[in-house]
Amino acid sequence: MARILITGGTGFVASHLVEALHKRGEEDIHLTAYRDEGEFVKQFVKTKNIHQLNLADKQATLDLIQKIQPDQIYHLASLASVGDSFEKQSFVLEMNIALQVNLLEAIKLHVPKTKLLHISTALIYAKSNQPLNELATVGPDNPYALSKFTQDLLTQIFSQKENLQAVIARPFNHIGERQTLGFVVADWAAAIARIERGEQESLPVGNLSSVRDFTDVKDMVQAYILLMEKGLQGEIYNIGSGQGVKIQEILDLLCSLAQKPIEVIADPQKIRPIDLPSLVCDNEKIMTLGWQPKHQLKATLARILEYWRENL
Amino acid sequence: MARILITGGTGFVASHLVEALHKRGEEDIHLTAYRDEGEFVKQFVKTKNIHQLNLADKQATLDLIQKIQPDQIYHLASLASVGDSFEKQSFVLEMNIALQVNLLEAIKLHVPKTKLLHISTALIYAKSNQPLNELATVGPDNPYALSKFTQDLLTQIFSQKENLQAVIARPFNHIGERQTLGFVVADWAAAIARIERGEQESLPVGNLSSVRDFTDVKDMVQAYILLMEKGLQGEIYNIGSGQGVKIQEILDLLCSLAQKPIEVIADPQKIRPIDLPSLVCDNEKIMTLGWQPKHQLKATLARILEYWRENL
Repeated sequence: MARILITGGTGFVASHLVEALHKRGEEDIHLTAYRDEGEFVKQFVKTKNIHQLNLADKQATLDLIQKIQPDQIYHLASLASVGDSFEKQSFVLEMNIALQVNLLEAIKLHVPKTKLLHISTALIYAKSNQPLNELATVGPDNPYALSKFTQDLLTQIFSQKENLQAVIARPFNHIGERQTLGFVVADWAAAIARIERGEQESLPVGNLSSVRDFTDVKDMVQAYILLMEKGLQGEIYNIGSGQGVKIQEILDLLCSLAQKPIEVIADPQKIRPIDLPSLVCDNEKIMTLGWQPKHQLKATLARILEYWRENL
Repeated sequence: MARILITGGTGFVASHLVEALHKRGEEDIHLTAYRDEGEFVKQFVKTKNIHQLNLADKQATLDLIQKIQPDQIYHLASLASVGDSFEKQSFVLEMNIALQVNLLEAIKLHVPKTKLLHISTALIYAKSNQPLNELATVGPDNPYALSKFTQDLLTQIFSQKENLQAVIARPFNHIGERQTLGFVVADWAAAIARIERGEQESLPVGNLSSVRDFTDVKDMVQAYILLMEKGLQGEIYNIGSGQGVKIQEILDLLCSLAQKPIEVIADPQKIRPIDLPSLVCDNEKIMTLGWQPKHQLKATLARILEYWRENL
């Protein structure tokens, strides 16, 4: 059994990753938490294994890695921010690069044989109406995406120069229970749950014509586990269902699952200034490794809606 | 007459830039200095216009830009490091990104109409045996090059999102008087000057087969001045002579200029672990703007050798 460290360990994705690892019999799981959160994962992870620290604090990160000596690191921690001000985004940029540097240095110093799965994002790619493979043109157009791209390049340099066993995952959109508000599916499902209760009248929506590639978070974390096992050193793997779906279709599916008719109203304020016209994964590389998404979109949406009915 | 700010204002390149601007009648020139240096530029710039600060200090940078209100900024400041440890290079990465963020935010806040020439580097490109134009594949393979690439992308985001008048220059190797030791031409010229004086016996050299594109720093700063005037917003311009020269040829030329025979000896320690096989500029874009290098390599080398004879 491996000793596993998950950074960003109390977030939405980590909660599903911990669940999946637990089902595989993994018990020696450590998490890092930026804030005191993660009620869900406390079901599966001993409280003493939840380490609260800021990975941008170099000494704290060095100390943690030295103490835990993980065999595997799922590196999910990053500040996320797309819609905020340039100033806040610049802070995100600096923090995300600092934490990446610190983690890589800590690995080099204390656990150079550790396998690292670095979780990047498909947002680093330039806009395109074609499905994106790992060789697609890169064009981060905000400081958050830039911070993730810089993390990737730093990880690759580290892999090449220091022979670190690092693999890079670039997930496309993923959805599921426990995703925080601020993401479209969570927002809509929560609003529908409120409408069903009579606490809200209508559902305000933004741009419905964008095309995205939605993967169930449970399929996503299976890809991460697969990459930890079989990903090749220094390689990048895009992860997504491969199916482009109009946001309108997500809305229609959610409304069809609602227990009462949903009044949808257009809200111009919800349209982001720069919305990618399309963001769809060419998933051939990860499929070749043996991954395949198992969850149907409608069933995933039904589960998410049920989650919000129970957790508002 | 424009108010001009040069960051990294007391370095090698800045000293030539100040001289060239001065010859054009520019007198309202401000410099930033990281350390107390820049004896040469004090000939041309009032001492009160030399501002000592660390641009990675956000408040100091905001205060400076607010106070000076420059019309034009030549942004040369960055920590440079290629040969050092990974740890030191990571510090360079974080510092260079922080200072870029701070400068861009200061411009946005206090002088949004300022024209910014951001000085990047050709080192961000992936290895290639073809001359490199602005669309060449990028592949920063050390944290310094990565920091410069991240600076570029951040500058482009800022140019697009905040409509900053920013232009990006990617210089290839450039040489001239006052370049610090640690660069091959300066090292060899200084060594030859010492051999001429009888203070050194022989000239130790590393890899001589690499091909580089050497531009006289005086031609380089003319390109910067041209880009400040005519460069298009958000655009990248590679700058170099366009001529690939074997390092062996530089050595032969310098030895031919020496006042006594030079004994050259091979020093395996001077061979960098990763030496680009070739790094040559495709300069069509900057040539189209009206730039052309005016100095012949041999004359430049003779000037550099003369500099070291007088300044050892």
